[in-house]
Amino acid sequence: MRDLSRDNRFLSINTATLRRERPLGEVVAALAKAGIPGIGPWREQIQAIGIQAAAKLVGDHGLVVSGVSRAGVFTAKGRAGLQEMLDDNRRAVDEAAGIGARCLVLIGGGLIPGSRDIADSRALFAEGLAALLPHARAAKVPLAIEPLHPMYAADRAVINTLAQANDLCDALGEGVGIAVDVYHTWWDPNLEQEIARAGARRILAFHLSDWLVPTTDLLLDRGMMGDGVIDLRRIRGWVEASGFEGLCEVEIFSQRNWWQRPMDEVLRTCVERYRTVC
Amino acid sequence: MRDLSRDNRFLSINTATLRRERPLGEVVAALAKAGIPGIGPWREQIQAIGIQAAAKLVGDHGLVVSGVSRAGVFTAKGRAGLQEMLDDNRRAVDEAAGIGARCLVLIGGGLIPGSRDIADSRALFAEGLAALLPHARAAKVPLAIEPLHPMYAADRAVINTLAQANDLCDALGEGVGIAVDVYHTWWDPNLEQEIARAGARRILAFHLSDWLVPTTDLLLDRGMMGDGVIDLRRIRGWVEASGFEGLCEVEIFSQRNWWQRPMDEVLRTCVERYRTVC
Repeated sequence: MRDLSRDNRFLSINTATLRRERPLGEVVAALAKAGIPGIGPWREQIQAIGIQAAAKLVGDHGLVVSGVSRAGVFTAKGRAGLQEMLDDNRRAVDEAAGIGARCLVLIGGGLIPGSRDIADSRALFAEGLAALLPHARAAKVPLAIEPLHPMYAADRAVINTLAQANDLCDALGEGVGIAVDVYHTWWDPNLEQEIARAGARRILAFHLSDWLVPTTDLLLDRGMMGDGVIDLRRIRGWVEASGFEGLCEVEIFSQRNWWQRPMDEVLRTCVERYRTVC
Repeated sequence: MRDLSRDNRFLSINTATLRRERPLGEVVAALAKAGIPGIGPWREQIQAIGIQAAAKLVGDHGLVVSGVSRAGVFTAKGRAGLQEMLDDNRRAVDEAAGIGARCLVLIGGGLIPGSRDIADSRALFAEGLAALLPHARAAKVPLAIEPLHPMYAADRAVINTLAQANDLCDALGEGVGIAVDVYHTWWDPNLEQEIARAGARRILAFHLSDWLVPTTDLLLDRGMMGDGVIDLRRIRGWVEASGFEGLCEVEIFSQRNWWQRPMDEVLRTCVERYRTVC
């Protein structure tokens, strides 16, 4: 297992940790100042300044883009709207390619609007993923399916377990992998075995945060690493035992706590926790 | 599949739907008046008047006790406190036996206090369950493991899937079964197969409510059947295809909506939804 305590070599920050509204230039400068080598930007930040300018920004600062958030959501407009979602996903692939991201992160999308058929919604996600794949392969952008916690199954993501993601990878082959986020998966009784099943080839991203007790909001109350109950080091051990050598990307949605603090303080805390509890 | 539209024959109301603080006598009278044949009381209500008085109440009104909520929680005081939890669980078995309940509902309990080791907490639950079983068998009270939604894994229940419950049943044999609650399990990609695996012998209780979009509280914002996104009839179909012939127990924790309404209105709505959307 890698020793994280000595430097920040494998650390990345998902920009949603700092409120995704911040302009990319501001975030990039803060990361460089904090000595953090990785960034996980959101599409909106890239679009705001254009792909070329975004690529130049991260390139000039020597940052590694551990992943771009986020695409997928093929269920959002139902079957009739799949083509529209595919067009948008192809643009997302181009954005990820343009800034040299290691992967594009995909989430399921919730139930098809008006539907109670979760199996059908999952099938539509699989259709969308298969249809997107040729474009992603051609652009050499690996697609990382990120299973979200089952509490998001209705309105955000019908892909909820690593087993589902692994099944999709089995079915689709080269070019599709998985983003393992401890927040979404820590409770899963099959976590260790599904991480092993995924292996280094499939695990394209590894996301860190913590589960607070109590959790006061379903979406925006994630904890800083060490402040919650997730056995972070054990899970990282499983991920690295599978052969994963990528970055550890901190992704914390925290409306009432971390989003209220100065960016430098948040980054300082991320570094300290990354080195001591992850 | 049973036709529920014509009468209330298979309907039961978990008393938490009416705020569990109501005295048992008041609830029993209201159920009888509403023509509802089943009740799922909480231990506190039985304890408040004593087992004999509670048994007489439900007996005089001819109610079926579809289950008693709730026991288990073997992790609550750690390994050192298991004996104390077992003593309490044996009293719960006696209460369930005393009022002729069809089962005693057990939930996992959260992580062992101070621990981040969910596997160890799950092992402690299994130990407690095994230790409780002889007493339950002697009292002829079936133990129904109720997997709770993964969002409760940290602080309420480390048993989160039907697969885990089935595994425990496999390991422990006669006297242990499962309570299937649509709220906790609807998202599970393996739901149909795990219901089939459980079969009629293991499915001891079937709980109804709905998942609202949006859900504003992790614990107290369950929906009335038909107001959310769960495919209730499909899941009931799977449960009945397994051979289940028991009651459908409505269990809705709804602090801001249904708990604010008069008991008669809530019961009327339960009956109407049970007949039309379940």
